[in-house]
Amino acid sequence: MSRRPPHPRLTHLTARGEMRMVDVAGKAVTKRVAVATADFTSTPAVIRALLGGTGKKGDALAAARLAGIMAAKKTPELIPLCHPLPLTKVEVGIERRSATVLRITATVETEAKTGVEMEALTAASLAALTLYDMAKALSKACVISEVRLESKSGGKSGAYVRKQGRG
Amino acid sequence: MSRRPPHPRLTHLTARGEMRMVDVAGKAVTKRVAVATADFTSTPAVIRALLGGTGKKGDALAAARLAGIMAAKKTPELIPLCHPLPLTKVEVGIERRSATVLRITATVETEAKTGVEMEALTAASLAALTLYDMAKALSKACVISEVRLESKSGGKSGAYVRKQGRG
Amino acid sequence: MSRRPPHPRLTHLTARGEMRMVDVAGKAVTKRVAVATADFTSTPAVIRALLGGTGKKGDALAAARLAGIMAAKKTPELIPLCHPLPLTKVEVGIERRSATVLRITATVETEAKTGVEMEALTAASLAALTLYDMAKALSKACVISEVRLESKSGGKSGAYVRKQGRG
Amino acid sequence: MSRRPPHPRLTHLTARGEMRMVDVAGKAVTKRVAVATADFTSTPAVIRALLGGTGKKGDALAAARLAGIMAAKKTPELIPLCHPLPLTKVEVGIERRSATVLRITATVETEAKTGVEMEALTAASLAALTLYDMAKALSKACVISEVRLESKSGGKSGAYVRKQGRG
Amino acid sequence: MSRRPPHPRLTHLTARGEMRMVDVAGKAVTKRVAVATADFTSTPAVIRALLGGTGKKGDALAAARLAGIMAAKKTPELIPLCHPLPLTKVEVGIERRSATVLRITATVETEAKTGVEMEALTAASLAALTLYDMAKALSKACVISEVRLESKSGGKSGAYVRKQGRG
Amino acid sequence: MSRRPPHPRLTHLTARGEMRMVDVAGKAVTKRVAVATADFTSTPAVIRALLGGTGKKGDALAAARLAGIMAAKKTPELIPLCHPLPLTKVEVGIERRSATVLRITATVETEAKTGVEMEALTAASLAALTLYDMAKALSKACVISEVRLESKSGGKSGAYVRKQGRG
Repeated sequence: MSRRPPHPRLTHLTARGEMRMVDVAGKAVTKRVAVATADFTSTPAVIRALLGGTGKKGDALAAARLAGIMAAKKTPELIPLCHPLPLTKVEVGIERRSATVLRITATVETEAKTGVEMEALTAASLAALTLYDMAKALSKACVISEVRLESKSGGKSGAYVRKQGRG
Repeated sequence: MSRRPPHPRLTHLTARGEMRMVDVAGKAVTKRVAVATADFTSTPAVIRALLGGTGKKGDALAAARLAGIMAAKKTPELIPLCHPLPLTKVEVGIERRSATVLRITATVETEAKTGVEMEALTAASLAALTLYDMAKALSKACVISEVRLESKSGGKSGAYVRKQGRG
Repeated sequence: MSRRPPHPRLTHLTARGEMRMVDVAGKAVTKRVAVATADFTSTPAVIRALLGGTGKKGDALAAARLAGIMAAKKTPELIPLCHPLPLTKVEVGIERRSATVLRITATVETEAKTGVEMEALTAASLAALTLYDMAKALSKACVISEVRLESKSGGKSGAYVRKQGRG
Repeated sequence: MSRRPPHPRLTHLTARGEMRMVDVAGKAVTKRVAVATADFTSTPAVIRALLGGTGKKGDALAAARLAGIMAAKKTPELIPLCHPLPLTKVEVGIERRSATVLRITATVETEAKTGVEMEALTAASLAALTLYDMAKALSKACVISEVRLESKSGGKSGAYVRKQGRG
Repeated sequence: MSRRPPHPRLTHLTARGEMRMVDVAGKAVTKRVAVATADFTSTPAVIRALLGGTGKKGDALAAARLAGIMAAKKTPELIPLCHPLPLTKVEVGIERRSATVLRITATVETEAKTGVEMEALTAASLAALTLYDMAKALSKACVISEVRLESKSGGKSGAYVRKQGRG
Repeated sequence: MSRRPPHPRLTHLTARGEMRMVDVAGKAVTKRVAVATADFTSTPAVIRALLGGTGKKGDALAAARLAGIMAAKKTPELIPLCHPLPLTKVEVGIERRSATVLRITATVETEAKTGVEMEALTAASLAALTLYDMAKALSKACVISEVRLESKSGGKSGAYVRKQGRG
């Protein structure tokens, strides 16, 4: 008789299936880095407007970068089971990938007992949402995609770098 | 001589290119609704784990829904130029689209002078990030995509429903 | 065959048993008032210390009152399904009920589509917890009890005043 | 001549009776655990509704647990003189004590210079208030009581376990 | 017998001298505007660095403006007795007054039962503190001064414009 | 040809002029203290009202002190590029300097990789703004000035004490 394999247990759940903030007391304090990205796609006219057109850079990208940095610090308020961590660095970069795509890259570092993947992902997401906020009056054709972890280091599970390509 | 067309002006910027929270005092208070979605993609084993496997629904989806609802209320803290609004309804649903995809749909309503698109997008994004947080110990192959506005109504610009299909 | 009667449905749950912030758009904007109380009980020495002993009132009660007022404003951040409301008044009083009991009374008012019971209860609870924080170095024998709604008015369900006595 | 004994000095007050966040720099970083409880009492019908009646567990308890976990992290924002601490674990359990009582138990851990009693008490209180929020449309006869510290360990004052029984 | 005149009563205090959030329910909803300023003074080299030197405007002023806008929205969390208000506009400008002085001007608007003076003052202060944060590694000789209300309109007390000059 | 000297680079900016939260991972954890002040100036009648007139000290100064303490803890939420730090002590004092001036002094300590200057400055500013809030109904002639760092110690740059006098 064929059976579906048992699904793996979520570490955030107790044996009774209840959420908890996982105990990290036994883990080592190490330097931990995480890099996450998000792509903001819209029309060429919107992308040009966000970039400030003919060279005079407006505040739009600065607003998105700051929103990302501040969101990294708010992550434990936003993601229910994240631990509060003493971030030692947050940097958010935005680059033009094509006429219709801006890529956000968030880098977050800490020295702590657990990693900062969620901080980097939250920073990238909120920077992208801030671009969306500024763009939405110009075009409805906006979308955020490719929100994911690019790399991490530190901790018992060691370093990780995403292998596969991306459009 | 060919010239690139002038880019449209971002309404969040003053004539000097500085960010501001736009003046909405002159706009009418109307009922405003916005619906936004986000797709969370991972491996079949992770999706099954999040759904609770053999029917006994754990807290995982509940945590994501609540994180989305609470994020909607925090939107003006997160998106620098959003107005604080008295939300009258927030609902976040999560459905299985395929063996590897969960779709989050956030619906937000208010009676106010400006719309709640960003509240719906922020709710969908944070619900998706909360799933990511629970899934990331099981698989690195997670991604959030298709974060966008599905529909809105209320306000001078009237109703909008996204036309085009989605994979 | 005897059966347990069906339990009433929680209004915060959808038909599928999922949490949501209830739609209040159709409700009328009326003046709404709620009064809640909490009792803080400890040893006579602790109560005297909190009251400032021989008449010179220190900052202890002021800290508890302010913590209660500020908590009322934070209620929608703390109680996942509470609506954000424009509070028009918050007042927190603390009175000595006996040698071992301080009673906190929080009064909150708004003009809105839904009531402020949770704001009053949250204010009373946080004022009591602030007293606990100051007292705990002096005695482990502290307890907060009788946290409940004393009265409310406004809205379709009309006025309510708690009938039964209390110690 | 008999005199009332002098009241003990609150450590949160300076010699001038002014509030301050106490200096903990000289204290040792140790593992610290605190357990606190709160009882939520209502009618049997309300308790059954919160528990989800005939076995299909809705989101109600999950919402209360998450509200408690998130409140633990917000404690230094809510209790004016609490120190911000790097929590390493937060767990909130809810169990049925009788037909009319649900008991919330919050366990919080850190490795820090001061304890997490207030974090555990705040988590238990906010979980209880979240139950109250969901119950209040069904019955006015709700009350939160027995909010207190059950045990603590770590730090100079050592371990503490509450001795006396409880109804 | 000469007597010092009685001091006027603070409206934020009850007759017993206790803080409260004043009842504004009886006040009219009108459009209310407040303008506040703050001066940031440092060395000419620091001011040039903040302005971005030779024309290429960096993110420094953008960061200060955004910090001011976001602080306006956080005012009721920061000033214990402020009412939460639905802000309809926030704008923060920064101009060079001399080789050593940058002046911040914050304009805040609402339609509400009470004014937004504190929102404007908080926005100006936090924008100035953000400049201080960026400047402090370059020079210790920084100071914020002249934080005050420049004008207000709306509400029963009517319009106010500060008369006296300023250096 | 005379040239204006190059302006020093802001450490919060990358080489591309973009804001970031500076990397402090390589810095040593040391005890760090910062003291900042702010002066609140108003009419003699307002100052007397804030001080509580004839000896009966009301809650006004207590409210300002607590607002300052709580603001110190919120600094990384308010100043976009500040690092979150585990504060070990916060104390806010208010003294009468003359018939028209109250001086606020905020002292903040931590053991961390970076200093707490901004925490002290933010605490002093918010305490002053809270006084302003209570005073503004009595007089429009209020101003906050002399917001600055008085001293700091800890970290590689060593101790600093402001030399010059002040009015």
